[in-house]
Amino acid sequence: MLKVIMEYLSKKVVCFGGGTGLPAVLSGLKQNPWLELSAIVNMFDSGGSSGELRDRFGILPPGDVLKCLLALSKHEQGAREILLKRIENKKYSGHTGGNVLLLGFEKVFGNHADAIDALGQLLSIQGKVIPVTHEQSTLCAEYQDGTIYKSETNVDDGIKEGKVLRRLFLEPEVMASKEALESIHSADVICIGPGSFYTSIMSNFLPKKIKKTIAKSKAKIIFISNLLTESVGMKDYCTDKFITIVEKYIGRKVDIVIFNKSLPNKDVLNRYALEHKYPVIIGKNSKSDSRFIFADLWTDSNIARHDSLKLANLISGLISQKNK
Amino acid sequence: MLKVIMEYLSKKVVCFGGGTGLPAVLSGLKQNPWLELSAIVNMFDSGGSSGELRDRFGILPPGDVLKCLLALSKHEQGAREILLKRIENKKYSGHTGGNVLLLGFEKVFGNHADAIDALGQLLSIQGKVIPVTHEQSTLCAEYQDGTIYKSETNVDDGIKEGKVLRRLFLEPEVMASKEALESIHSADVICIGPGSFYTSIMSNFLPKKIKKTIAKSKAKIIFISNLLTESVGMKDYCTDKFITIVEKYIGRKVDIVIFNKSLPNKDVLNRYALEHKYPVIIGKNSKSDSRFIFADLWTDSNIARHDSLKLANLISGLISQKNK
Repeated sequence: MLKVIMEYLSKKVVCFGGGTGLPAVLSGLKQNPWLELSAIVNMFDSGGSSGELRDRFGILPPGDVLKCLLALSKHEQGAREILLKRIENKKYSGHTGGNVLLLGFEKVFGNHADAIDALGQLLSIQGKVIPVTHEQSTLCAEYQDGTIYKSETNVDDGIKEGKVLRRLFLEPEVMASKEALESIHSADVICIGPGSFYTSIMSNFLPKKIKKTIAKSKAKIIFISNLLTESVGMKDYCTDKFITIVEKYIGRKVDIVIFNKSLPNKDVLNRYALEHKYPVIIGKNSKSDSRFIFADLWTDSNIARHDSLKLANLISGLISQKNK
Repeated sequence: MLKVIMEYLSKKVVCFGGGTGLPAVLSGLKQNPWLELSAIVNMFDSGGSSGELRDRFGILPPGDVLKCLLALSKHEQGAREILLKRIENKKYSGHTGGNVLLLGFEKVFGNHADAIDALGQLLSIQGKVIPVTHEQSTLCAEYQDGTIYKSETNVDDGIKEGKVLRRLFLEPEVMASKEALESIHSADVICIGPGSFYTSIMSNFLPKKIKKTIAKSKAKIIFISNLLTESVGMKDYCTDKFITIVEKYIGRKVDIVIFNKSLPNKDVLNRYALEHKYPVIIGKNSKSDSRFIFADLWTDSNIARHDSLKLANLISGLISQKNK
């Protein structure tokens, strides 16, 4: 009987996402000791510290990896204090300690998979952080006006300029990492989102074999809708559209959609409106869609972020449901 | 008036020591916000993880540096949990995270001074950790039987075998680091000890210009006597002898000697006696020596270690005394 309960509770969960969204999911889910977590992380970051280190040293960008490692750490608070601090040095200005550390470990161990593994050991992480690919590539977007923008930050800029994205692609095409494919293959649950929709989330489905492996997977797929749309080029995106796009990129139906139903006060929304970010709207089809779960998920602050614990407990509850 | 008080309290303190002894001093002293601390660290470590990294990569050994950085950190507890954990990797077995991190930083920044500085920034250290030299060298000892042992661990082994040390030297001779000389030059107080007497403490005085700079210094010099002697070759060392040797190595008189007056129970002492370690004995001359301060300093445990807070508060008190 105990064995049955354990099998029933114990699930392999694979999470896709980015920025601050994915760490929020992980930070909550790691508190459920029954789950075996894998975070599959985007390797196409081109902005900030991470992008500069990538350009300068030809390494894979460490930023999102670091955030996920911290989120999964048993010593999260202490580790954040140390590893998110920026180093001042005459040659390297303003890089976070953790990024430089991953760079240093990559130099010591000779490859980034071992570097990530070593830092994961030091941080006593609850789960795994898996690069979606071990190869270098640049994220590119073709917009409806026919223009093509290259690199993650430029792709985002295109959307900010009001361009509507038609096609997202990698240059060059790269193969997914073996570990990413294995974790998808054996997953009981796949969580998608939150995070920058195209650059952090959809980009993960581009390396070869990812889409096919998800399409074949028997995992329950949970899509966690963002709280807000992202700038001008996505202003008319409603849940219908988000779900259609996700399903196109993963080649399979989503089983559950988690949608935030509560909004903060007008001042906060007005502030985001200045950046052309608006609450995601329920589409016509979504209204009668039985896959939707509506919950109060906006964190108790003025920042557009999912409440990590509420989200994690909701996901845990959904995971242990017998029927999809 | 306030300025006077501040000048009176605010002192530059330079500490020499090693192993677990120096970190104990630093960990306590960092809690006195008036002190400007510098730990000058031995770079001749040849044992364990540190020595292996030195041999394998030709870097300066990180072990003592790491311990001092941790001791001076604002986040000491959290940092210890992360950086003292050992990494398991097919190529690198059992090195502490902090040692590999310093190695990685040295590869990124190109020199160990910047690596130490960067880790110090991440750990928000209260003070500075300064390598006694930036050059590589091997610690050697000539014993009274004429034999010569080379490398720090072998020098220790010689003493364990019962050999009496006649001369300690470096091969090759190296220059002291500029930062070490500057900190000694501007010091108000110099603390010497505790730590392995020859290999961790006296070895610091060997790089060129260290002795001369201390000899010329107007700093108050405090010698903190070890609790126990070290193995067979030092069994007849009493305080008289320790002080004579220290004064020979630094070329100046010591101003204050801190000596532990309380001992743990017999079981603990018997355990140490099995390793040929005995409580340090007061010498004939020391009995009437007005420089001696006797205090209850054995930490509240079965381990031969100075109580960090008691020692630090005693030193702080001595520092602010007007007369030597």
